[in-house]
Amino acid sequence: MSEDTLDALRGVWRRDMPITEALGITVESASEAELVLRMPLAPNRNHKGTAFAGSLSALATLTGWSILWRTMREVGEMAHVVIQDSTIRYLLPARSDVLASARLPAAGDMERLLTALRRRGKGRITLDVNVRDTAGIVVATFEGRYVVHREDLFG
Amino acid sequence: MSEDTLDALRGVWRRDMPITEALGITVESASEAELVLRMPLAPNRNHKGTAFAGSLSALATLTGWSILWRTMREVGEMAHVVIQDSTIRYLLPARSDVLASARLPAAGDMERLLTALRRRGKGRITLDVNVRDTAGIVVATFEGRYVVHREDLFG
Repeated sequence: MSEDTLDALRGVWRRDMPITEALGITVESASEAELVLRMPLAPNRNHKGTAFAGSLSALATLTGWSILWRTMREVGEMAHVVIQDSTIRYLLPARSDVLASARLPAAGDMERLLTALRRRGKGRITLDVNVRDTAGIVVATFEGRYVVHREDLFG
Repeated sequence: MSEDTLDALRGVWRRDMPITEALGITVESASEAELVLRMPLAPNRNHKGTAFAGSLSALATLTGWSILWRTMREVGEMAHVVIQDSTIRYLLPARSDVLASARLPAAGDMERLLTALRRRGKGRITLDVNVRDTAGIVVATFEGRYVVHREDLFG
């Protein structure tokens, strides 16, 4: 991911999505194929001192959205990205900061998405996001279905 | 829900789950069978001026957890409540504050849960949460599977 795109992404969060700052979410790393976001435990702790499930879900939702947003931008499509539905499984409590990683879908899936977007103005894609603690243990797995569209479907 | 239980619930949020304050979540109403939480749009807005999906998911997760937590307390079970997995469907963008409502499961399901908890120290239950805008339109539906247990399974 280019530094410009990363800066633009951070700008959208900071300017337009204020809760991302309260959640403490930052970009941990960004490569061509993968985006990793970090979220600190302290503001997201629950009554058991582990990460609140709702914060993990918000982080995973944002991670999937962010990798699609930047990918659209980098392929020159100023498309909207909206989540349609998601499922999250909580495997273990997280007792540390957490890292959520999303990988770009396989090339074939991305091509189908872009073809649908260009032909019909709209496409769907499913993204997996893994949430790990700082020891690398997967604490939650998330699957989100996102819709990418050219026009604002909801006016 | 008794005022004491409501105060205890608010105390857990405020003291032990600080992100609930950043999200701006408050109790809108609480009856025997239903709990309704409110979340303001402003801190949870996204780049389109509608509610961020991740905030809606966090709100729904907390609503289901809270109604189970208070029910356990009111039936005299000081059990832990943990979410196992959830699915959320985003139907429409929310352009206002939102209200999330969870109803207690049918009496038969609650009885099965309590029997399992008392016999085996653990039970599972599925809860539905609806998220509405202030005009009463359902903007998201959530289904969460929660585990209630007597001992701390994760030490």
